Amino acid sequence: MIAAKVIDSIWSTRKADSLIGLKFTMVEVLGGIDAGRIIIAADTISAGIGERVLVCTGSSARKMLDREDVPIDAVIVGIIDEDCNF
Amino acid sequence: MIAAKVIDSIWSTRKADSLIGLKFTMVEVLGGIDAGRIIIAADTISAGIGERVLVCTGSSARKMLDREDVPIDAVIVGIIDEDCNF
Amino acid sequence: MIAAKVIDSIWSTRKADSLIGLKFTMVEVLGGIDAGRIIIAADTISAGIGERVLVCTGSSARKMLDREDVPIDAVIVGIIDEDCNF
Amino acid sequence: MIAAKVIDSIWSTRKADSLIGLKFTMVEVLGGIDAGRIIIAADTISAGIGERVLVCTGSSARKMLDREDVPIDAVIVGIIDEDCNF
Amino acid sequence: MIAAKVIDSIWSTRKADSLIGLKFTMVEVLGGIDAGRIIIAADTISAGIGERVLVCTGSSARKMLDREDVPIDAVIVGIIDEDCNF
Repeated sequence: MIAAKVIDSIWSTRKADSLIGLKFTMVEVLGGIDAGRIIIAADTISAGIGERVLVCTGSSARKMLDREDVPIDAVIVGIIDEDCNF
Repeated sequence: MIAAKVIDSIWSTRKADSLIGLKFTMVEVLGGIDAGRIIIAADTISAGIGERVLVCTGSSARKMLDREDVPIDAVIVGIIDEDCNF
Repeated sequence: MIAAKVIDSIWSTRKADSLIGLKFTMVEVLGGIDAGRIIIAADTISAGIGERVLVCTGSSARKMLDREDVPIDAVIVGIIDEDCNF
Repeated sequence: MIAAKVIDSIWSTRKADSLIGLKFTMVEVLGGIDAGRIIIAADTISAGIGERVLVCTGSSARKMLDREDVPIDAVIVGIIDEDCNF
Repeated sequence: MIAAKVIDSIWSTRKADSLIGLKFTMVEVLGGIDAGRIIIAADTISAGIGERVLVCTGSSARKMLDREDVPIDAVIVGIIDEDCNF
């Protein structure tokens, strides 16, 4: 997974039918040589702007949803505790 | 997913039979340390040159099509709203 | 796989139900041009801070768990022997 | 997919039985910040040295073959038309 | 696939049960902008230190083994012929 910070919301009206109802957020990778990488992740656990999150990528991202047929490759799987310092 | 901008169309006459009828576009990653990365994505929702899009990569890209047997690893899954600033 | 060093633990209280009970660690890639890359890996074999580990990424990471439905994309699969020099 | 140029052939006599009969080519990524990346791709459509091709990577690469059990992660899926400028 | 050179062996005594009996090697990517990247690959065809090999990554790596349940994401699938110049 990737530790990242939610920095924005992304709105897309014209999109795949299977994505309707999904919230998309822009996250920025935290730490290491990938710091500053931007990923668009689906969010099913209502992370807020500024929160630090765990993002799962690849085929495993689909496991966060009830359905297997959704074309997403990144999803927020957890919110990092505020008092977790790293 | 990746936020990217459609910059060109790609034409390939000699290709896998399963790709016949698919439109291919060249997109450029927007923002972050990957800005400027070039990806060739299949486009089934008719994005235009210059539009900002969401691109799904990896095995999940195949979920955008009706068939599982197509060798694609990147597909446009949505068009980012024009008034979405990031 | 990736050779990495465990550098921290990551705590996430609000997370996917399927992740409850899993331990998450922050690892730093060792050696080569990816040195310093940060990955958050699930840990089911109790690696300690400072230990060098083998991390498996992508869909194969799910093979380390008993269940196929867990949204993880990185997991510690082994601890590199202390007397293994590289 | 990736737009790349075929730059060489790769010969491997000692290899997995399932790879026998497959042709391997070295391709170089064209354009963007990944320009100059080298990938070894299986080629089932007889691309020539110097031709520009579309390369599909990851699990989707296996969809180019008749069999699911072949350990390849990159395959040429199309040849970019000569008069396609980008 | 990736063209790489075997540079070391990796020993791990505490590891996933499903990995017992597998040999792990450290390989260094050859050529292009990824030159110098380090990957730990399973080796089932007895490549020697210094030999140039083809490494398959991702889910396809599991196709090199008889079993589907092994958490590996990189495996040596062939040894590049000594007289293959690139």
